[in-house]
Amino acid sequence: MRKSAADRFRHLFNRSLIFVRNQQNQQHHRLSPIPLSSSPFSSMASDSPFPVTAQNINPQVLKCQYAVRGEIVTLAQNLQKDLQANPGAHSFDEIIYCNIGNPQSLGQQPITFFREVLALCDYPALLDKSETQGLFSADSIERAWQIVDQIPGRATGAYSHSQGIQGLRDTIAAGIGERDGFPCNADDIFLTDGASPAVHMMMQLLTRSEKDGILCPIPQYPLYSASITLHGGHLVPYYLDEATGWGLEISELKKQLEDAKSKGINVRALVVINPGNPTGQVLAEENQRAIVEFCKKEGLVLLADEVYQENVYVPEKKFHSFKKVSRSMGYGDNDLCLVSFQSVSKGYHGECGKRGGYMEVTGFSPDVREQIYKVASVNLCSNITGQILASLIMSPPKVGDESYESFMAEKNAILSSLTKRAKSLEEALNKLEGVTCNKAEGAMYLFPRIRLPEKAIKAAEAEKTAPDAFYCKRLLNATGIVVVPGSGFGQVPGTWHFRCTILPQEDRIPAIVTRLTEFHEKFMNEFRD
Amino acid sequence: MRKSAADRFRHLFNRSLIFVRNQQNQQHHRLSPIPLSSSPFSSMASDSPFPVTAQNINPQVLKCQYAVRGEIVTLAQNLQKDLQANPGAHSFDEIIYCNIGNPQSLGQQPITFFREVLALCDYPALLDKSETQGLFSADSIERAWQIVDQIPGRATGAYSHSQGIQGLRDTIAAGIGERDGFPCNADDIFLTDGASPAVHMMMQLLTRSEKDGILCPIPQYPLYSASITLHGGHLVPYYLDEATGWGLEISELKKQLEDAKSKGINVRALVVINPGNPTGQVLAEENQRAIVEFCKKEGLVLLADEVYQENVYVPEKKFHSFKKVSRSMGYGDNDLCLVSFQSVSKGYHGECGKRGGYMEVTGFSPDVREQIYKVASVNLCSNITGQILASLIMSPPKVGDESYESFMAEKNAILSSLTKRAKSLEEALNKLEGVTCNKAEGAMYLFPRIRLPEKAIKAAEAEKTAPDAFYCKRLLNATGIVVVPGSGFGQVPGTWHFRCTILPQEDRIPAIVTRLTEFHEKFMNEFRD
Repeated sequence: MRKSAADRFRHLFNRSLIFVRNQQNQQHHRLSPIPLSSSPFSSMASDSPFPVTAQNINPQVLKCQYAVRGEIVTLAQNLQKDLQANPGAHSFDEIIYCNIGNPQSLGQQPITFFREVLALCDYPALLDKSETQGLFSADSIERAWQIVDQIPGRATGAYSHSQGIQGLRDTIAAGIGERDGFPCNADDIFLTDGASPAVHMMMQLLTRSEKDGILCPIPQYPLYSASITLHGGHLVPYYLDEATGWGLEISELKKQLEDAKSKGINVRALVVINPGNPTGQVLAEENQRAIVEFCKKEGLVLLADEVYQENVYVPEKKFHSFKKVSRSMGYGDNDLCLVSFQSVSKGYHGECGKRGGYMEVTGFSPDVREQIYKVASVNLCSNITGQILASLIMSPPKVGDESYESFMAEKNAILSSLTKRAKSLEEALNKLEGVTCNKAEGAMYLFPRIRLPEKAIKAAEAEKTAPDAFYCKRLLNATGIVVVPGSGFGQVPGTWHFRCTILPQEDRIPAIVTRLTEFHEKFMNEFRD
Repeated sequence: MRKSAADRFRHLFNRSLIFVRNQQNQQHHRLSPIPLSSSPFSSMASDSPFPVTAQNINPQVLKCQYAVRGEIVTLAQNLQKDLQANPGAHSFDEIIYCNIGNPQSLGQQPITFFREVLALCDYPALLDKSETQGLFSADSIERAWQIVDQIPGRATGAYSHSQGIQGLRDTIAAGIGERDGFPCNADDIFLTDGASPAVHMMMQLLTRSEKDGILCPIPQYPLYSASITLHGGHLVPYYLDEATGWGLEISELKKQLEDAKSKGINVRALVVINPGNPTGQVLAEENQRAIVEFCKKEGLVLLADEVYQENVYVPEKKFHSFKKVSRSMGYGDNDLCLVSFQSVSKGYHGECGKRGGYMEVTGFSPDVREQIYKVASVNLCSNITGQILASLIMSPPKVGDESYESFMAEKNAILSSLTKRAKSLEEALNKLEGVTCNKAEGAMYLFPRIRLPEKAIKAAEAEKTAPDAFYCKRLLNATGIVVVPGSGFGQVPGTWHFRCTILPQEDRIPAIVTRLTEFHEKFMNEFRD
């Protein structure tokens, strides 16, 4: 018995990142837990000195994969240590992390106004000092006063209401109302430590067993697959159409829903990531209307990942929230279960480390809302710094505020530079042999398709790795550039991709393009059929 | 079918907070999910306009209880609104929240040095300004420089390593080494958003099915029962002995372990809260040694909740970490699976809203460690402000630092005042008819036993509420004082308690004692048998 569990463990580890193909096989662990003979008592009594082993932990933990911090990043971190220990040992002198949307790690500077307010709220004694006037903008001081006054007892170090500080939620609700042209109720806002815990909370709520399914785009951001696996649910894939710029077709949603139903899966929700991650498309409003109709008709919760709402790089596309779209269709609070996720980590601000975010929860019955609140309350509250920042991004300086011009200059410089970087990288990728890359209309990523020669695929198989992972590891070892294999996000079987962020600073892009191009040529020369 | 599910829901909601008695009945939901006929499709097609209802969400969410933010707090919040809308409508003019360890919400001031450093790290531009010298202490400026330099690329807004920033973990490891006299490896530290996510992570890792059990003290902090329920495990209770000052008897652990084993439960871990929550006892070192031996012999993970390590109020007791105790017994890293939880929310600093904390994870095999890291990585990282604060509490100002004296004065004032408050409240409670209260040797709570007259118990039954919840609601309505019924923490069946924090400011204690005493006399007069 123990041997077979160990074998399964090795299998799970060796199967690289190809989760889509294997997904159907992996959904039945929950009802067939590892047999009791591998309990802590039996395993301790025998060969392992550790009562807890990979054979006797929660198999959902074992199954869960999170590619953007997975094997390739561990390899990169080891390479980085090696570079420090042995300078000159490699043909490059630094690791360039294009694996994750982490702008400030690549040199993006924080927005001054936001940081001024945070500092003042962290140490409110500054608000009473005369020197503060010379160090901070007038509107940051005013805003900090407002926020500190909104906190009951001015207790900036206290747990808040489990949904977040009421005054900050009021500010966020007003910001959403202004964005959408439709009102938002502050009671619908749940502030969270980034968007991830909010996604987990909804997956936990909706998943009763592996018979509960969540429709997810493929390719998808692996938080969704990881969260569904951890909560024991079933990922129901729907494929985005690469040929039409990662189009989201209602016919595909219907087909996958019917297919899942025929297998006895209760599909509970539809995840839509707009702008797309890793695919960068921005949905057209008609498309969003059709998605809303589909969810309403089928009784699905619409889980709208809208964390890239500020990141749109093409003039012909605009971000529209699903809340705005559904309200503009005349649907009210009782017509559609809609959860919109927002984060301080993305946008032009990129404050990933602050772990701020919220979900706007509409269309749920009061007793279900009560359950969502209860789960939030078990973790007491999200961090106050993140809460403050979430209120700031939804209510930045306005015309007439002392900071307004410098704020707009900082914001526009970041967004216009991201636009240029997206364009340069997309063009460079499209010039490579066998590579095609859709435009990044939004978000922070490119997701090029690479047509790998049969010889490269065989070489990957010999190394027991997925072909795209094989390519990405080669790229890392040759250039220090870290990208994530497409298999970490899911892709049409037999196609290969990688995700590359557009976040290295603008002056670094030409060198990255050169390194990437040289590598690709060499790779193709080595493996061309 | 739908009717019976709805009935069950009502039952779950009405059963008040008595979870210990019912616990055995509630562990079987996971293998008997709510039938498919109550799927979103069927329920949507009929009476409810909402596809998601309390009948078709995850039953583990429905079952989970979290008393310290439960019904009594909702009642208090409603009362507070009423007080604002109708001043003078009640015999009191404010709500005093003694339900939760949230010191700054009751007027405790943050430690100046900590906040200075946080402000400088949030807005590092201050470090280059000359005015900063006049506004901040020299050592806070120096510390902020150190920290900013420890962050790769000085990117204070970037996601960090998923275990936390390496330099901060080094600082914490050094602090633990100094505290214990035994070394700590920074690779063993996982920084988390407060201690709660760390507890969830371990419960998730260890729980495969409802056959996996966790030994938990009764009374316990309800995070543990909530987390075990959410992850579908089995809470195996062991009772603390109220008669010996909430003593933790090894014989009781053995008895409950054997009993659980005989029912086919794999007991995976033992939770020990030291100093105790809600019970306030501080374990003696001999007792801790016996606990370590027990865990080692039985192959149990020792989950040591040590978040109150700074909160010890009696000279005859000292806090000893379980890591120190096990190392002093000669046990090394391969001898005992030990997880120590620490938080910035407690201690003398009480920075609850910053959501900082860590777990020190020792004694796990490398492959299990890898799984813990993977789960941490799915949420990317904990918030950087909380990470910085966790490093500061484990490495506060030292002799010779400019802040040292003022820091020590602030710290000692808080701790000595907490000592006085604990004593005053304990004495007052022990004077009440039918009430006995053990000393708070540590932590932030008193957990008095109240012997309720039969008439009061009958009146509670008539209101379909637990007798202790009945008492606490009466107390709230008469005085505005919020305490948590003992049934939220678990207690020996047929005994009744409540948990009251010692956190109201010292000058408020006499008035609280008066209100409490008057209420109790009236209550007893009304219900005395």
